[in-house]
Amino acid sequence: MKTSQIPFRTLREAPAEAIISSHQLMMRADLIRKLGNGLYTYMPLGLRAYRKLENIIRQELDASGAMEFKPTVVVPGDIWKESGRWDTMGAQMLKAQNRQQQDMVVSPTAEEAYTAIMKQGLTSYKQLPINCYQINTKYRDEIRPRYGVMRGREFNMMDGYSLNANDESLDETYQAYAKAYLRIFKRLGLKVIPVKADTGAMGGSGSEEFMVESPVGDDTLILCECGYAANVEKASCAKDIPLDKNGNPLAATDKPFEEIKTPGVGTIADLEKFLDCSQHSLLKTLIYKATNVSLDLSGIECCKNIKTFTEGNMTFYPEVFVAVCIRGDLDVNEAKLAGLLKASEVTLATAEEDMRITGAPVGYAGPVGLNNVPVIADNSVLNMHDFLVGANKADTHLVHVEYGRDFKVWQTADVRTAKAGDKCPVCGKPFYTSRGNELGHIFKLGKKYTQSMGVTYLDVNGKSSVPTMGCYGIGVDRVLASIIESFHDEHGIIWPMSVAPYQVAIVPIKYKDSMKEAADRLYDELSKLGIEVLLDDRDERPGVKFNDMDLMGYPVRVTIGDKNLPNVEVKLRNQSDAQLVPLEEAAAKIAQTVKAALDELNA
Amino acid sequence: MKTSQIPFRTLREAPAEAIISSHQLMMRADLIRKLGNGLYTYMPLGLRAYRKLENIIRQELDASGAMEFKPTVVVPGDIWKESGRWDTMGAQMLKAQNRQQQDMVVSPTAEEAYTAIMKQGLTSYKQLPINCYQINTKYRDEIRPRYGVMRGREFNMMDGYSLNANDESLDETYQAYAKAYLRIFKRLGLKVIPVKADTGAMGGSGSEEFMVESPVGDDTLILCECGYAANVEKASCAKDIPLDKNGNPLAATDKPFEEIKTPGVGTIADLEKFLDCSQHSLLKTLIYKATNVSLDLSGIECCKNIKTFTEGNMTFYPEVFVAVCIRGDLDVNEAKLAGLLKASEVTLATAEEDMRITGAPVGYAGPVGLNNVPVIADNSVLNMHDFLVGANKADTHLVHVEYGRDFKVWQTADVRTAKAGDKCPVCGKPFYTSRGNELGHIFKLGKKYTQSMGVTYLDVNGKSSVPTMGCYGIGVDRVLASIIESFHDEHGIIWPMSVAPYQVAIVPIKYKDSMKEAADRLYDELSKLGIEVLLDDRDERPGVKFNDMDLMGYPVRVTIGDKNLPNVEVKLRNQSDAQLVPLEEAAAKIAQTVKAALDELNA
Repeated sequence: MKTSQIPFRTLREAPAEAIISSHQLMMRADLIRKLGNGLYTYMPLGLRAYRKLENIIRQELDASGAMEFKPTVVVPGDIWKESGRWDTMGAQMLKAQNRQQQDMVVSPTAEEAYTAIMKQGLTSYKQLPINCYQINTKYRDEIRPRYGVMRGREFNMMDGYSLNANDESLDETYQAYAKAYLRIFKRLGLKVIPVKADTGAMGGSGSEEFMVESPVGDDTLILCECGYAANVEKASCAKDIPLDKNGNPLAATDKPFEEIKTPGVGTIADLEKFLDCSQHSLLKTLIYKATNVSLDLSGIECCKNIKTFTEGNMTFYPEVFVAVCIRGDLDVNEAKLAGLLKASEVTLATAEEDMRITGAPVGYAGPVGLNNVPVIADNSVLNMHDFLVGANKADTHLVHVEYGRDFKVWQTADVRTAKAGDKCPVCGKPFYTSRGNELGHIFKLGKKYTQSMGVTYLDVNGKSSVPTMGCYGIGVDRVLASIIESFHDEHGIIWPMSVAPYQVAIVPIKYKDSMKEAADRLYDELSKLGIEVLLDDRDERPGVKFNDMDLMGYPVRVTIGDKNLPNVEVKLRNQSDAQLVPLEEAAAKIAQTVKAALDELNA
Repeated sequence: MKTSQIPFRTLREAPAEAIISSHQLMMRADLIRKLGNGLYTYMPLGLRAYRKLENIIRQELDASGAMEFKPTVVVPGDIWKESGRWDTMGAQMLKAQNRQQQDMVVSPTAEEAYTAIMKQGLTSYKQLPINCYQINTKYRDEIRPRYGVMRGREFNMMDGYSLNANDESLDETYQAYAKAYLRIFKRLGLKVIPVKADTGAMGGSGSEEFMVESPVGDDTLILCECGYAANVEKASCAKDIPLDKNGNPLAATDKPFEEIKTPGVGTIADLEKFLDCSQHSLLKTLIYKATNVSLDLSGIECCKNIKTFTEGNMTFYPEVFVAVCIRGDLDVNEAKLAGLLKASEVTLATAEEDMRITGAPVGYAGPVGLNNVPVIADNSVLNMHDFLVGANKADTHLVHVEYGRDFKVWQTADVRTAKAGDKCPVCGKPFYTSRGNELGHIFKLGKKYTQSMGVTYLDVNGKSSVPTMGCYGIGVDRVLASIIESFHDEHGIIWPMSVAPYQVAIVPIKYKDSMKEAADRLYDELSKLGIEVLLDDRDERPGVKFNDMDLMGYPVRVTIGDKNLPNVEVKLRNQSDAQLVPLEEAAAKIAQTVKAALDELNA
């Protein structure tokens, strides 16, 4: 292909809204153009890279035994009502009505569609497992789309789903995806970390995210040198012993609890100073509001009057308040809390809600005598002694409190946010943290969808059974952006050979006379060898052409100038030195370089 | 691939709603499954055929000089408001509001998106032409989706667009698409007829449709043995001379027109009988209601008070009534009428509207004295003489009417529907007709979008100019269905080699012992030769397997039975005879057959 045939123009400056490198470089190199907020068009050069990426994903999944299928992007709202996600999925679903006033959805994901489709043909255990994926358009109405295609509203997802007869079969499919993912990312040159992930309100029995470390990552990774890796939403840590200000373990007290006045001392830091104590002997109580809770709360006295609603065969509490106690130096992990409650979301209660529930301003809540909301204690509370809690009264705390003696809770659980320095639950060494972006996800869903949507088959004994299910996703655009985040320098993109829009760029100093002749010859020779070549035939200054080719990141650049002929200059984008090569030998040598790079990625 | 790995089940009977062969066979062979009204999922086997088709389109368009790009499927409503199609596009647009209450559209087509995107980078004539296509999801909210993927609501379209500096350049791009289309259909084994097509309300200076003849076609084709071919919406015919009942040309009359009583004789057939005359001496006057008319009517007295609305920089009359006169034996072509008026739709007025406008019941309208709506006369009226018209009065007609003398019209035009037997405008021979399905379309749009959306560039003289535009489409799913319409028999699909989901099906009578060994060997040998093979390893009766393979239409079937070993039976799906071939030679022979078939299609 010749540059003059391609509709592109490079930009010196990225638009101001592009603040991460991949977004800036994709805009500057004209790989994408913006059509609306969170809506990006792939231009021809960007699309070439995108299609290569798509094909690598397709090849590895096909090799793993999955088969591609293709549901529609627009699907009937009815299947979402059947599964129970029509309302709970929230505002990220783009909903429309067709001319018969039927509700339609632009798919944000396809568990419902997969289940509805595969249900149609399923009769016997002999047909299981069924394992299909698609690479298709999705739309999520992100509140704040950003970072270009890293987090757009419309995006392209590989989403695979499996129906399995039992947990062993589900685990096999799950592991096959995990293996295929690692092959895919290897071929892209990306180093990914599989981390344990939150299974959230979806329930499910296992979940791993495939993360790429990135300073602009959305997620916090909790890592240990022993290999333990988890998303902060999921990471647990080893028990630790609460210590007093002198470093001694807290000791139990016989003293009854008593009120102390703490006017204007509502925060843990202030209390620590005010009382000259360790944060380990301060108990924090936070009131949370949980939305769309599907955990059964009917056994809890104070929840008996909360109204519920039903979607599909799921029953939800639209809004539930809970109190969460945790050691003073620790933070509540909202993802863990939401998972515990099977809630779509949890948020801190407002000051007004706090006042209504505890009778006190924010900072003075405590578990003693609090019985109008369920109380949850983080495991860290279990070995605290002689500690302070809020008195549910303004400017007042209680001291000498003991768990079990002075208050009981509805549940104890791990709702603590792990952080750097906390101890690894596997080896006990301290965690370190990193930022990461989620590129892929595998998830054992269990029977949530198959049950709610009435999928059954006859098992080997002729008995009607409900299959279990897994889902598997890769954010294709996000992977593309992450490749650029990982491989670029101040001049532009440095494409890995496997996804470069073209593998080789030929830049004649001027596209005429002997330089044109040499460029055309090399172009033909390389094309015949199956190499993807771009010939920069524009009538521009050499500097402009060099800058553009570097910005666009082609792995091999061949400069043809009459000073060097019959030699040509071969430079790799990821190396600083160039090499003079006789034109005669150039094609074979370059083809070898390209193939060696591909072989290394594909190894 | 082995059949046991593929999620499919065949059906003996297609669902009752499937009334055309391709829909029935695609459902029975499990190539597609229904997810909603007009919404079909491609199952793995169907998707393999679909992807091959997509790639043939991609290859030929790339070779023609077009480049692929990929706008989003969901686009901002704003660009549709800018172009002036937000309201006029009507109910087939699926509209949604995002969480910021911004209007969004699931793209039914992408003229707006292309124009908005390419406008961003365009500065100089040096960048023109810009010629990009996409193969992407579209959604049109069809009132009555039918025929499976032949006319679904969501569908996949190849839609290309070009910006050109001038008409010559536009014509070059237009011809390049036409040539690529013919290559594409050739490779699919489809015989298509390029026909002249209506340019409709869009205006534009040229349009061709690529039709495949089909008894279940949506369109009527007007054909002549000289090669003239047009969609009935566009077809014109040679002038013909109106004759009296004895076969003599109508003669002008000096008699003044006069009323006659025609109680209950309101139709042409009744009048012909009542008056014992030729239909050629009867003039039909029909009142039409036209919607969203963009033709300027401001010079017409009776239209001065019609309200208008404006979208983008286009002004529309939401509703205009017109009277159309035509010779009694002919029919008004609503597509031509809509094109003439630049209307999005024309429909016959209701009886009430007729009465309001003409003062008479349906059947008694006439042009004499009719001055509250614009009157259009078809060209056929121009050489009528001494004819009858409605008197705009119940049970009354006028006779001895002469055009020009007794009434004048706003416009004369070709608004006649051509039919079999009408004379070809090129050679004068009689037309014949056929049913056809439109598979592709090329269209010279002109400056409608570039002007309304403000696209300019600096021409070679540094002057700001507006580029002209073309659009080019292929309905990918519809092509796939049409292939099946063209190639099937009572047993099932007969895939052309180029799009068959697998090229060869190996059917061992039983998949065990020597038959398994032979089947596995042939499978490996063929796979190594680059042939796409399906091995039917199911534990089913041979008849079931044969029927399924025939239904699914694989071009080559190899039967392996221990009676024949060491020979195997090779049968082509499109031939009735089978051949015994030694297992040793089978792979090479079959590979040759596959390649010969591909070569013939690709020639």
